[in-house]
Order: sequence, then structure tokens, then C-alpha cells
Amino acid sequence: MNQGKLYLVPAPLDFGCDTQAPLQQVMPLGTIEVAARLSAWICENAKSTRAYLKRISELQSLSHALQALQIQELPRAVHKKGDHAGNFDARPLLLAAMQGHDIGLVSEAGMPAIADPGSSVVRAAHDLGLQVVALSGPMSLMLALASSGLNGQNFAFVGYLPQDGGERAQRIRELESLALKTGQTQLFIETPYRNAALLQALLQTLQGNTRLALSCGLTLEQAWSRSAQVSAWKRDKPAAPLDLPTVFCLGR
Amino acid sequence: MNQGKLYLVPAPLDFGCDTQAPLQQVMPLGTIEVAARLSAWICENAKSTRAYLKRISELQSLSHALQALQIQELPRAVHKKGDHAGNFDARPLLLAAMQGHDIGLVSEAGMPAIADPGSSVVRAAHDLGLQVVALSGPMSLMLALASSGLNGQNFAFVGYLPQDGGERAQRIRELESLALKTGQTQLFIETPYRNAALLQALLQTLQGNTRLALSCGLTLEQAWSRSAQVSAWKRDKPAAPLDLPTVFCLGR
Repeated sequence: MNQGKLYLVPAPLDFGCDTQAPLQQVMPLGTIEVAARLSAWICENAKSTRAYLKRISELQSLSHALQALQIQELPRAVHKKGDHAGNFDARPLLLAAMQGHDIGLVSEAGMPAIADPGSSVVRAAHDLGLQVVALSGPMSLMLALASSGLNGQNFAFVGYLPQDGGERAQRIRELESLALKTGQTQLFIETPYRNAALLQALLQTLQGNTRLALSCGLTLEQAWSRSAQVSAWKRDKPAAPLDLPTVFCLGR
Repeated sequence: MNQGKLYLVPAPLDFGCDTQAPLQQVMPLGTIEVAARLSAWICENAKSTRAYLKRISELQSLSHALQALQIQELPRAVHKKGDHAGNFDARPLLLAAMQGHDIGLVSEAGMPAIADPGSSVVRAAHDLGLQVVALSGPMSLMLALASSGLNGQNFAFVGYLPQDGGERAQRIRELESLALKTGQTQLFIETPYRNAALLQALLQTLQGNTRLALSCGLTLEQAWSRSAQVSAWKRDKPAAPLDLPTVFCLGR
């Protein structure tokens, strides 16, 4: 019997936002078609997966009724800590693929396994000899990096910064020093309700001629991006829509 | 008069490949629609931009005849050295946007300004106060990272490795040491005709339990990906289609 494949299925970036972009505007037809025919899913959250599949079904009939789909959630511990440490054995989740059915992996927004859980499932699939196929879709980190005009030949994504004020300032100085010395653009994110505090900390901590770029609400109608030296950010104080998902980039 | 916007328009990943994926399979309708209505372009290469626009026109009529489009190439020096150093003043290329016309920025494959020229144009647009809008499409680095199952909470793209054998081995050891110590996944690329030599150098240089992942021909029918410890790569010697564009990832 042939094994099924593991498809990495991107989700739109409007998760948790008040407005949504029409799905076909940001998601290729090829991705929508594959997602519509899968009978088994592994996901970050079953409820948001069903909501996404409902949006898909408005463009392309699902091969299986929503109620008939196998939807398995990743354990909550995997979300919280990230699952790249390699302690979680995801192989049992892939049973349907071992039995010949294609499986989808999906997170709440963007690409699974990037700034989101899922990498343990991908590793398990490779260990089981399953074919892994990543599908195209909106990728917030790359949309933000391109929009920043910062160095795209050498960049790093470092996740979240510390919440404690002192540790956060120290980490910001560390990232700035790395960016200025090596030319490597540094990307990071924050939960939306902490975005304003992070921007304030960045403007207080960074040097005036360091370049800072923000992209808020990528792919949404209200999408907003700005890239300028820190001195210009301080002078102009633009009203960025920081309640939307935001990617921060700094560099020289 | 209102200023035009700068749209960052992704291109399919099959540039220079013998086979092409149907455009609508990998490119969202929203991206195709914007690209079809633009009258002015800044690009890496005018010939491949016209070929891409011809593919777009088969799905969506262009608002302006191909011959009537303003297509400006980035100077060759900007391609070669990367244009993140900030010495090239791209503002004159954006004249059409200052006069109220939307402009597209496009490279030969994937997202402009990421592992490709274009960042000087994006910086110039921000400096001129133009709105910058990045459109969704296939992003090889993120498709490869997700397919690797390696740490997607902390990763870096470092471009090309040195061509000299000794320097290359030293750089590989440096990247491995960084990945093992900090957990930061390291991504890099090579021109296709050097992919086989790079893989050989990686297998000779890396430690047996370091994890190595390759994605070849992403989004193509022949797409191939594998993620395994170096010891397993040495044991199995899989026949990777290294003549296709390939992204290399290493981590723990």
C-alpha cells in the first residue's frame, strides 16, 4: 500500500483580526484544492481549523463532510514550549498517512512549523519515510522582511523578546549590536497587546541611525508598513495600527 | 495628486527550470490581479519580467499592452553585490509612483529583496513616503524551512557559502557550531551546478548527529525534500534532484 503524504498547509494571516481578507486573494488555488480534498488533519487548534475549512468550502467543495474529517490537535504542551526540542513523538498522529491517506498540517496563521507549532510532526514524517510537501501561501515574516528594505541576503528570526523591561532592553541592544556588526537583519514578533510597549522600548533603546521597520496587519485592507531610522521614528511618531499582528525588523 | 504604491510582486520558483508549475497553482489570484493592472515595473531582468507577464496575461488580461509598459532594470552592479549596502540611490526609478502610478518590483524567482535584489528600491520608496505593499506568493526559504522540521522559532538565512574548499569547510563548521549551541536553524543556498559539491562538503564536514535538510525544486512536480541526521544521509545516499534550485537547512 502506498503511504500518504504530509501537506504543510498555510493559513491566512487574519486569525484573531476583526476583518478578513477574501481567501482567494492571498491563497493560491493549488493550496485551496489540496486542502479541500484532505480527509485527515493535524492542527494547533481544531476549532480554528474547522473555521478555515469552512472558508475553503465556500470556494471549493470539500471531498469529505466537515463532521467526517479526522482532526487531531497537537498537545498543548507542544504549543507552549515549541516542539523543536525533539521530545514529543508525533509519529502516532501520522497513522492515517501510514495507512495511505494524505494528511494536512495547519496552524492558526501562516505556515505551520514557522513561528508556530508543527515541526515535531514534520520530523516524524521524515523519520517514517513520508513525503513532505509544503504549499504556497502568505508568509508574514517574508512579507515583512521584503517590505522593510533591510538586508534580505542575511537575516534571522529570533521569535519573542523577553517581557521583563530590563531583560528586554538588554536583548534589544544585543540584537542591534549583531545587526550593526554583521549586517544581519533581525526579525521578531510580539503578542498584539504588547506591541505598543515593545515599540516604545525599541525607540528608547536603539541608536538613532539604526533602521527599524514595522509591518502591521499584513495582507489585510488596513495593512501598514514603515521603515526608517530610529531618529525619524522618534521625530514623526506615526500612528501604527499596533493592535494588528505585527512583525518588527531592525538592521543597518 | 496622490502618490502611487510600490507593490512587491513575487515570481514563481521555476525560473530556469525545464518544467513550470501552472501559475494559478502557486500564485494567489490577488497577486495575479495586481500584477496584471500595473503599468510600470522595476526588475532584476526585463526579459524574464516580460515572460512572467506573458504567463500572467494567459490568466488575466493586462491593463496595458506588454509593449506599452515601463520596465526598468536595476543596474547590474546592484545584482552582483546585493543592494542592501545603501550606496545605490533607487529614487529616480520611482518617478512613475511620484506621478501617481502604482509600480511593481519583481525579481527572477520568489520574493524581490529576499535573497535577490530590490531592497534599495524598497528603502527608496519608504524615504519618498510611498506606501509599500508586499503580495503573497511562493517563498522558497520558508517552504524549505517548514519542510525541514528544524527549529522554526529561531532561524537564519546566510546566503551563499564560500566557493573555496577550505573556506567552505570552515564556514560549514561555524554554522554547525552556531546551530548546535544556540538552536538557531541555518539556511543557505547555492547555484544549482554547485549543489552536488556543496552536499558532498556538508556530509564530509558535519558531525553525524547534526540534522541536515534539503528541499529541491520547491513547488514543481518533481519537488523533493528530505530531513535526516548526517549519519543517515551518509548511509542511504539518496538521489536528490540537485540540478533543481535547492535550499539547504542545518540544525540540531
